[in-house]
Amino acid sequence: MRENTIKTIWQNGGSVVNGWLSIPNAWTAEVMAHQGWDSLTVDVQHGLIGYDVALPMLQAISTTATIPLARAPWNEPGMIMKLLDAGAYGIICPMINTQAEAEAFVGACRYAPQGYRSAGPTRAAVYAGADYLQRANSTIVTLAMIETAEAVKNVDGIVSVPGLDGIYIGPSDLSISLGLQPGGSFAQPRLAEAIDAVLAATQRQGVVAGIHTSSTDDALRMIEKGFRFVTVASDTRLLTTAAQSVLAVMKQVQAPKISATTPY
Amino acid sequence: MRENTIKTIWQNGGSVVNGWLSIPNAWTAEVMAHQGWDSLTVDVQHGLIGYDVALPMLQAISTTATIPLARAPWNEPGMIMKLLDAGAYGIICPMINTQAEAEAFVGACRYAPQGYRSAGPTRAAVYAGADYLQRANSTIVTLAMIETAEAVKNVDGIVSVPGLDGIYIGPSDLSISLGLQPGGSFAQPRLAEAIDAVLAATQRQGVVAGIHTSSTDDALRMIEKGFRFVTVASDTRLLTTAAQSVLAVMKQVQAPKISATTPY
Amino acid sequence: MRENTIKTIWQNGGSVVNGWLSIPNAWTAEVMAHQGWDSLTVDVQHGLIGYDVALPMLQAISTTATIPLARAPWNEPGMIMKLLDAGAYGIICPMINTQAEAEAFVGACRYAPQGYRSAGPTRAAVYAGADYLQRANSTIVTLAMIETAEAVKNVDGIVSVPGLDGIYIGPSDLSISLGLQPGGSFAQPRLAEAIDAVLAATQRQGVVAGIHTSSTDDALRMIEKGFRFVTVASDTRLLTTAAQSVLAVMKQVQAPKISATTPY
Amino acid sequence: MRENTIKTIWQNGGSVVNGWLSIPNAWTAEVMAHQGWDSLTVDVQHGLIGYDVALPMLQAISTTATIPLARAPWNEPGMIMKLLDAGAYGIICPMINTQAEAEAFVGACRYAPQGYRSAGPTRAAVYAGADYLQRANSTIVTLAMIETAEAVKNVDGIVSVPGLDGIYIGPSDLSISLGLQPGGSFAQPRLAEAIDAVLAATQRQGVVAGIHTSSTDDALRMIEKGFRFVTVASDTRLLTTAAQSVLAVMKQVQAPKISATTPY
Amino acid sequence: MRENTIKTIWQNGGSVVNGWLSIPNAWTAEVMAHQGWDSLTVDVQHGLIGYDVALPMLQAISTTATIPLARAPWNEPGMIMKLLDAGAYGIICPMINTQAEAEAFVGACRYAPQGYRSAGPTRAAVYAGADYLQRANSTIVTLAMIETAEAVKNVDGIVSVPGLDGIYIGPSDLSISLGLQPGGSFAQPRLAEAIDAVLAATQRQGVVAGIHTSSTDDALRMIEKGFRFVTVASDTRLLTTAAQSVLAVMKQVQAPKISATTPY
Amino acid sequence: MRENTIKTIWQNGGSVVNGWLSIPNAWTAEVMAHQGWDSLTVDVQHGLIGYDVALPMLQAISTTATIPLARAPWNEPGMIMKLLDAGAYGIICPMINTQAEAEAFVGACRYAPQGYRSAGPTRAAVYAGADYLQRANSTIVTLAMIETAEAVKNVDGIVSVPGLDGIYIGPSDLSISLGLQPGGSFAQPRLAEAIDAVLAATQRQGVVAGIHTSSTDDALRMIEKGFRFVTVASDTRLLTTAAQSVLAVMKQVQAPKISATTPY
Repeated sequence: MRENTIKTIWQNGGSVVNGWLSIPNAWTAEVMAHQGWDSLTVDVQHGLIGYDVALPMLQAISTTATIPLARAPWNEPGMIMKLLDAGAYGIICPMINTQAEAEAFVGACRYAPQGYRSAGPTRAAVYAGADYLQRANSTIVTLAMIETAEAVKNVDGIVSVPGLDGIYIGPSDLSISLGLQPGGSFAQPRLAEAIDAVLAATQRQGVVAGIHTSSTDDALRMIEKGFRFVTVASDTRLLTTAAQSVLAVMKQVQAPKISATTPY
Repeated sequence: MRENTIKTIWQNGGSVVNGWLSIPNAWTAEVMAHQGWDSLTVDVQHGLIGYDVALPMLQAISTTATIPLARAPWNEPGMIMKLLDAGAYGIICPMINTQAEAEAFVGACRYAPQGYRSAGPTRAAVYAGADYLQRANSTIVTLAMIETAEAVKNVDGIVSVPGLDGIYIGPSDLSISLGLQPGGSFAQPRLAEAIDAVLAATQRQGVVAGIHTSSTDDALRMIEKGFRFVTVASDTRLLTTAAQSVLAVMKQVQAPKISATTPY
Repeated sequence: MRENTIKTIWQNGGSVVNGWLSIPNAWTAEVMAHQGWDSLTVDVQHGLIGYDVALPMLQAISTTATIPLARAPWNEPGMIMKLLDAGAYGIICPMINTQAEAEAFVGACRYAPQGYRSAGPTRAAVYAGADYLQRANSTIVTLAMIETAEAVKNVDGIVSVPGLDGIYIGPSDLSISLGLQPGGSFAQPRLAEAIDAVLAATQRQGVVAGIHTSSTDDALRMIEKGFRFVTVASDTRLLTTAAQSVLAVMKQVQAPKISATTPY
Repeated sequence: MRENTIKTIWQNGGSVVNGWLSIPNAWTAEVMAHQGWDSLTVDVQHGLIGYDVALPMLQAISTTATIPLARAPWNEPGMIMKLLDAGAYGIICPMINTQAEAEAFVGACRYAPQGYRSAGPTRAAVYAGADYLQRANSTIVTLAMIETAEAVKNVDGIVSVPGLDGIYIGPSDLSISLGLQPGGSFAQPRLAEAIDAVLAATQRQGVVAGIHTSSTDDALRMIEKGFRFVTVASDTRLLTTAAQSVLAVMKQVQAPKISATTPY
Repeated sequence: MRENTIKTIWQNGGSVVNGWLSIPNAWTAEVMAHQGWDSLTVDVQHGLIGYDVALPMLQAISTTATIPLARAPWNEPGMIMKLLDAGAYGIICPMINTQAEAEAFVGACRYAPQGYRSAGPTRAAVYAGADYLQRANSTIVTLAMIETAEAVKNVDGIVSVPGLDGIYIGPSDLSISLGLQPGGSFAQPRLAEAIDAVLAATQRQGVVAGIHTSSTDDALRMIEKGFRFVTVASDTRLLTTAAQSVLAVMKQVQAPKISATTPY
Repeated sequence: MRENTIKTIWQNGGSVVNGWLSIPNAWTAEVMAHQGWDSLTVDVQHGLIGYDVALPMLQAISTTATIPLARAPWNEPGMIMKLLDAGAYGIICPMINTQAEAEAFVGACRYAPQGYRSAGPTRAAVYAGADYLQRANSTIVTLAMIETAEAVKNVDGIVSVPGLDGIYIGPSDLSISLGLQPGGSFAQPRLAEAIDAVLAATQRQGVVAGIHTSSTDDALRMIEKGFRFVTVASDTRLLTTAAQSVLAVMKQVQAPKISATTPY
């Protein structure tokens, strides 16, 4: 079975630099895959991506050795299994608030007796190799999102679930849940404290801690802190920011005559 | 009929800042349309875009007041007319080398008696208004690409074609045609000379000169020179460059353990 | 944040005339959006529409000021949140039979602390504006479908759920549930009684009552009764009926020689 | 080989009532196919349809016995042959102005020695039967559009081309070419004269005359005159008109508070 | 309502030969539909197929009299109802382990009072006929998958659910659940015993037993045993195997110089 | 630039075993790419494939080291260049009958000064490497189809065109052109003679001869004769044949009760 190089990086003590795909498109996925991310996550939750578009995106990532992951839309076994069968080498599952939810999630990613995933790795076996059914349970990565105060409270139970590889902090939802504005600094006391508590729990349990950031500064700081899986920016954000800097220069000199951008 | 604000900018003495779409996707088109470009060109030639994808992209641009243009794949009337019927408010046509080719191109964009465009503006009339057939000939913009030595030689005949609004220089192909490497400086003598000759011809004839660039520096310099329509960067290029700068920072600190990007 | 004009109409005492989209297509969505409906509902339940097609339909509606809504396939948070992130300005949720189901539905549409919607309004923030996260809870419309005898029985509990804007009666399913043929007259005693009971409950609670109809007569009668949100006809029905009237005329004179329409 | 019932109708002295598909969608194509049109034309010229969407539309028509036709985007052999290989049982070709153009068109639809169509009826042979290559030349219908003054002048040469089954008048373009407004009455003298001249030429040559109309009145009048193939209305037009009549009723009583339909 | 010929075959004492679609494509679906399978199952679970692709596949099958079925991704009512509304004439539901799960599944497929399916058979009524709502409950086929040891234990309760037409054994998952390697012989004692127990339960209850196989030998043997619905091979498997036999011959003589097939 | 291993095989004296893709789908393309063909040709002529589907198919092939080729729909530069920009590493062009046509074809595939291909290898440079523009002219393979009597007559002129890598015989069209039934034996004297004449001309000129076959027997015989590029079977044909053999076995025992396959 094709190696899951994310696990290799972890085993070697490194941290995974993950890219994020929210554009529903196989060409942008292929372009991103050629840039050097260790892994790319097809975001089927907040990305504008349903299953029928996720599939060619997973194919496009496979034109390189970048590891394809997917974020499921919700903790629902139907779509999680479909994404795995399509060749995702790991699942990030949103809104895991309790140990029971973590068990349901992990179970959907593991064949019996470790879980209740149904066998039929149609594309996965082509991507990964003929021994997929034998080795998938130890190859596929499972990351539970910690993004509410409740989840932070329950984090020890969550990370104790056998077969869970790690957690992934969603700072936006976690901020809202803690009564903060989303998008604020990681240094805000209530947020920082929650992040630290989660990180400590993963270290006690020996699982991986990951986190979503929106700047290289935050990402590097989090790696330094001990996070082993960081996301810096989504494709939509990268494109938007890049276009804005070009236009900022052009408009300085050359203010647009017509305000083209106002939506209704 | 909805105003073609490109023409308004020109009538007011301004220059159009045009964005470039090569990603075959309606979401990236919508994102780009919200950034403030005066116009956006759906590139059906070198962009990875056929008609069936160009259509939703033109719809996505119409969620804003940004003017939608299209580059045709070639000087072939079938596709040019389809793009106009789909609501493109102007056509950039590649590889116009002679006056006769310019006449064929312009004719495809104009209803009789100015041209031979067939009547059936299915989406165009919804986008632009019920009087489309009456006003399209004076609203739709036509830009002929000058991108070979032959075209430079024939530029006076090309710009003299009635109904042609302007030309658009393609520096890559023009460089190759002049025996230079594509992607080189606009200041290379042979290229600079050709650009100047084309610009002068447009000014003699009173039509617009446009040019494809790949930096804000070049774009601003060209506007200063007298170009009235400049493209700075494509969506694919913006995304690629933005991803590369993020990864450059991340890797400095944190060299990827596995070279994920090597294609076969 | 872009105004939700449905709410404005309600605040001004008016009734919303809603169009219905069951054709999985962005062009028909755009055409419908240009006709003057106050809102258009992308029907992801009985319409032939999955997420990957709903997205460009929502984009197409955004070429006008018509308010885009979506009917979810079922009371499942994954898809409801995806439709909201894609820019739907309200959700109609089928088969809400109890207060608990209404709470689950409304919670999926509201960020904490009002609900448990996950933050990541990828397209919604482009469509609606940068302050989306701050104002979405008070802007997004939630309508629970009342379409069983059980729901009618539980209607007071349902309409009492905080954050629920109103209910939407589905007369076909309600008829079946009441032991009547679907498609029958709204004046049938058992159906009329249920409709009246639901309407009364909404008026007691001060929430909006909406209803699906299939004729302008019924729609106008329901508005007169006090319904504030009415649907008259779906795109598929409009197309079918229009084609049938043309063919009825043509065949009167000119009976088709070959019965082309018999399915297998 | 499956019978081309259009030809059967003609052989029995009848007239074909043709429906028109401009919506790029297989569901609307299937709905239209179930209404009873003798044939349906997938309009790849002014319809919003490229090849990749035309294919599932042709499949959808094949769920009934309605005969699938296609209008080519232009007199270009590549696309004409692709539409035939996809199962179109006839081609309507726009803007045939000379006998030479008619010969090029017909040649693209006929295998050697009658023409130069390339052999490879991938879907056509599944749709029509294993003897497709042997019988396609006598089964496939070819209709050349007469829609300019020049074409009217050359009509005798055009209809004389062996293998051409008939002509199809495009009144909009013909009106423009004659210096009239498109969409006007068929009774305008210059237009009426041209229509009569074309009809007479077909009758002298023994080929079929067809015409595009936009009302049952015109369609019936044209059949009476001797036209054997009439189109009444496109799907987009049917949907638009039907939506408008519903809204006209609703707004009479209930003027929309917000003008939702204004495009930018 | 269009006859469900699967039921007719069963009533006549025959066995249904079912084909299996995992390729997300309407052309391969149409090709398969023309080969003579009694029914074809669009596999929305392990097939690479989401709803937006399942729809045109169901349309493609309807170009023939082959009966279209679908396997749902999971026992979730939203997607099951969507597949039925799209025209599936039966649902195979994975992982039914208890009577309660069987009741939930069957309920999603039946209108009240037999179940809780919501009314809105948009395409189903076009495919099947105007009396769809009246007759769907007795026409649509429901098959519950038995594929765990738990399900075998609970089989009598499962098959006793009113409205369930039969069961469908999934030997891969059942093998894993029994501690065997998937893909092994049906003759392995533990597997054979389970198969026999399930078959016996269906015969006691008078419902149909179906099974997934991967060879004609197994399929014929199972029919002989009493199975009334057998699947032999999926489209992906058929294509793969056929390509491999061609290449085996070619390479014998002509070993490929470059190993083109190694994935990363 | 990524090596074109087709050329390497030729340089090593080997013959290329080419697979053929007519199914408009990226999954079947990926499956085929994993079987071991030296190259795969996306057939945009008789395959049911337009540009917007060809693109993800080329991506899917790139998940392996199999070389992606495309057959153009016709000798039209617009589409040929689009297929090359999308990453096709060679073009097979149908119906090349004269030296002038071969020059037009080859010119469309070569940058100046060897040809008139326009520069903009959007995906090609990602697939092949940053030096694409410098090396494409010597890497891309051009094969002109010889498939008429006229082409056989003109073959020496055709193969003499600089930049043409070889020819590809289309036996079906060639048979029709020679007055034979398509699909007949390669040993028919008139056909055999034409094949030999073409092969001899390529050998005189030192270019490659290729041929389309439909059996491994023919393919091997042609390799033995000196052909260096052979196609054995298309994906559609492989799937059809494989399904038919399964059904032949099943029906022997178990004749289907209902003839499901009859098209209308």
